[in-house]
Amino acid sequence: MNARLIARQFGLLLLVMAAMILAVAAWSFLQVQLGDERERAAFRALIASVSIGGAVGAALWYGTRGQTGAIGRREAILLVAMSWFVGAGLAALPFWLWSAPAGSGAPVHPFSAYVNCYFESMSGLTTTGATVLTDIEAMPRSLLLWRALTHWLGGLGIVVLFVAVLPILGVGGKRLFRVEAAGPTPDGVTPRIQETARVLWMIYLGMTGLEIVALRLVGMNWFDSVCHTFATLATGGFSNHNASVAGYRSVGVDLIILVFMVAAGINFGLYFQLMRRRWKQVLQDPELRCYLGIIAAGTIVVAWSVHGQAYNTTTGELAPAGIGSTVQYSAFQVAGVQTTTGFCTADFDQWPFVAKGVMLALMFVGGSAGSTGGGLKVIRCLMAVKIMWAEIERVFRPNVVRPVRIGKVTIDQDLKHSTVVYILGFVVLVFVSAAALMVLEEDSALDSTTAVTASIAMLNNIGPGLARVGATCNYGWFSPASKWLMSVMMALGRLEVLTIIVLFFPQFWRSD
Amino acid sequence: MNARLIARQFGLLLLVMAAMILAVAAWSFLQVQLGDERERAAFRALIASVSIGGAVGAALWYGTRGQTGAIGRREAILLVAMSWFVGAGLAALPFWLWSAPAGSGAPVHPFSAYVNCYFESMSGLTTTGATVLTDIEAMPRSLLLWRALTHWLGGLGIVVLFVAVLPILGVGGKRLFRVEAAGPTPDGVTPRIQETARVLWMIYLGMTGLEIVALRLVGMNWFDSVCHTFATLATGGFSNHNASVAGYRSVGVDLIILVFMVAAGINFGLYFQLMRRRWKQVLQDPELRCYLGIIAAGTIVVAWSVHGQAYNTTTGELAPAGIGSTVQYSAFQVAGVQTTTGFCTADFDQWPFVAKGVMLALMFVGGSAGSTGGGLKVIRCLMAVKIMWAEIERVFRPNVVRPVRIGKVTIDQDLKHSTVVYILGFVVLVFVSAAALMVLEEDSALDSTTAVTASIAMLNNIGPGLARVGATCNYGWFSPASKWLMSVMMALGRLEVLTIIVLFFPQFWRSD
Repeated sequence: MNARLIARQFGLLLLVMAAMILAVAAWSFLQVQLGDERERAAFRALIASVSIGGAVGAALWYGTRGQTGAIGRREAILLVAMSWFVGAGLAALPFWLWSAPAGSGAPVHPFSAYVNCYFESMSGLTTTGATVLTDIEAMPRSLLLWRALTHWLGGLGIVVLFVAVLPILGVGGKRLFRVEAAGPTPDGVTPRIQETARVLWMIYLGMTGLEIVALRLVGMNWFDSVCHTFATLATGGFSNHNASVAGYRSVGVDLIILVFMVAAGINFGLYFQLMRRRWKQVLQDPELRCYLGIIAAGTIVVAWSVHGQAYNTTTGELAPAGIGSTVQYSAFQVAGVQTTTGFCTADFDQWPFVAKGVMLALMFVGGSAGSTGGGLKVIRCLMAVKIMWAEIERVFRPNVVRPVRIGKVTIDQDLKHSTVVYILGFVVLVFVSAAALMVLEEDSALDSTTAVTASIAMLNNIGPGLARVGATCNYGWFSPASKWLMSVMMALGRLEVLTIIVLFFPQFWRSD
Repeated sequence: MNARLIARQFGLLLLVMAAMILAVAAWSFLQVQLGDERERAAFRALIASVSIGGAVGAALWYGTRGQTGAIGRREAILLVAMSWFVGAGLAALPFWLWSAPAGSGAPVHPFSAYVNCYFESMSGLTTTGATVLTDIEAMPRSLLLWRALTHWLGGLGIVVLFVAVLPILGVGGKRLFRVEAAGPTPDGVTPRIQETARVLWMIYLGMTGLEIVALRLVGMNWFDSVCHTFATLATGGFSNHNASVAGYRSVGVDLIILVFMVAAGINFGLYFQLMRRRWKQVLQDPELRCYLGIIAAGTIVVAWSVHGQAYNTTTGELAPAGIGSTVQYSAFQVAGVQTTTGFCTADFDQWPFVAKGVMLALMFVGGSAGSTGGGLKVIRCLMAVKIMWAEIERVFRPNVVRPVRIGKVTIDQDLKHSTVVYILGFVVLVFVSAAALMVLEEDSALDSTTAVTASIAMLNNIGPGLARVGATCNYGWFSPASKWLMSVMMALGRLEVLTIIVLFFPQFWRSD
């Protein structure tokens, strides 16, 4: 294990993130000049964070000069896995430093505890979107911008950024990309990693610009447009309003965010194909069809289940019970959980059992492989269904050997096996995590619905669950131990579990 | 599909079961002569059931004379799968015919609804042990004997009986045995099926005799000894007392039942080996070691979790909090759920969360393959753990190919795949079933803990779950629709899911 090389990369990571915080600090400075008094403390916290991040980053970077050796598989895994923990550590600083001087007399802000800041920034970087805040609007706007920016950065990945930067250093980025590329099929990605990463960022930037303008056009102000765009395209879910998207009471806003949520859950490799005008290949993509099909089917079932009933939006108002608004709210909530964005306009915790059951099932499905979405990924679920059907058929047709196909591709035995093992392991992990939460929260008498759905929401990087972590609730009330555990769970989910779970095995650390 | 041949086998099944009911009827007749007035109605119901079962059975059997063609794979599956449904149909008759004439004025007995009788006899034949009865002791003793006998018959299997009988008809029993033999490794079973089945029955009979005498020696009366022995060795769980085994308040009874529960959860093939004095092979059996290890570890964790607390036994009394009784109650409850017997002496629904969590996990593990126990089977769980570890190791040692071994046997790719797919499918089935129960029970506002643990208890053939189906509760309050569904679930669990699930696929019925 080449510790110095890894330290050097972490140094770079901290420098890049410090630069991002600096950009936010510059904006904050502008706000102070424009007379926003709340920004003064935020600006100081941001600048302090830049200093700390920059100093530590520079020390690591320059202290390990000359280290350019090849990066091995284990180093690559360690680097990817730890990046999120290190990144969240720095990203939490502005929140913490801002709230610290509050002190004397004033009610204690959640961010005065570092664990809350860490949870929030891990939630941001992993694009989970779970918050510990009760009153979001009371925060200085620059910190809300930074909070949204963690989503955007995490979205396509600190690591894809790494992929475009690392090769300049003569370090192999290909390995990193293989570990990071979410899901089993990085199909359609060219072998020239650096070029690919650049194109993916261009697409991401293009979509970002589009959504900001679109939201502005339907009446959102610029600041809200930017924050919500960051949260949408990263399938994150942080809003800068307490009532989340429902607060706008605008069909236009709902519709635009819905469209971009769905777009963010599509394999970005397909946009690559689109740019090359390979329409047919895109339209025939089995995962895309399945993904859109599930959203459509989910919307129909949920709409049927909630139809004719008035239900609460996240603002607490009753949504009208007409067909139009039923479909609107159903589609938004379904896309919200399946893409793992977690934006809510209705409190689906109050919905009838069938609708809740569908929502829970969709939480596991998640987005497409190679999208910013989390979850098991559509392609894995599609494979699992085909594999199970093949297994059932084998009982009564033992002599018929029918290969499992996705589109025109035959899935080999190895990939079939990995897929099923992954899903099974994931399900086991959900329950082990829920059990761990119940043990940690014995004092707060955590109910099993909350524990299990919180575990689902963390590991699939969604945000809201049911009961005490429902759409109108937050994670602030958990104990510090639970928050640390949940931070690890979010990272586990974001990095496809295995990347992080290996770190807990002594065999990984042995240098054989 | 040779329908006449299948009808002929069902005829035989009904005749055999009618003969069993006749034996119970004879005992009932004796009780009437000895002056037990409650037995008159029971005797009439038993004789009526014998007549109906005998008549239908004989009609099917003689009406299809000359049908001796070979039995195909699909016929064999259909036969095995439907046997339990047909068998439960007849086994339910004595209960139903007994309660029917109650009528006018008297409070309605649960057994006056056929669905309750069907649920009870399916629960008996699948060795689940879940009951719809509130007051068990109010039943005539002959019906309680019949209820216990359904356990014993189901235990090693109506189908093993079939295996010994069918070959006489010139019909291939080997296929049936392969479908029936619970679990993936019918290791140590000789190819001569008929001989094997006879030896297995001899072992079963021998153990039955042993336990009856042992229970009698510690003070149980003969009748109770017989009923509890049937329920223990089949890993069933029906008791003829409302307070179940706790009612005896006897360490001796607890200990004997504990030993025989554990014995019933061991692969019967190992007893076969023992008779041939292959000690070493038995002691080194990986599944046996794992099975006993899990029970021991489970007992330790549960005892640690409940230690020092007073808790309710199923009689409602407080169990003493000393170390001796804590270990006694912990071991009994742990073995009770892991062997899927479901006998309870303590109300573990009131235990702390850790103990309950362990119990839930053990419910899934179940007994050994080739035992009378249900669940996923120890060997499958052992394989799954090794497979997952191999998958984790592959992340950081992609070039090390390490085959998965159980003992000295290398598990081939095909079996690995089937095992993981089976477990995943089973877990999905648990949640689909729980969701279906919640939909069916919308009126009774079924909570998710009850729905999920009822589903676990049914599919693993255990009996008790948590909350409203806890150790001191019963299944009488479910709606008829739920009871039909749960009857199917018990059969699914008993026949390793796939055997029955194929019946729901149109492709199975096509004659290609």
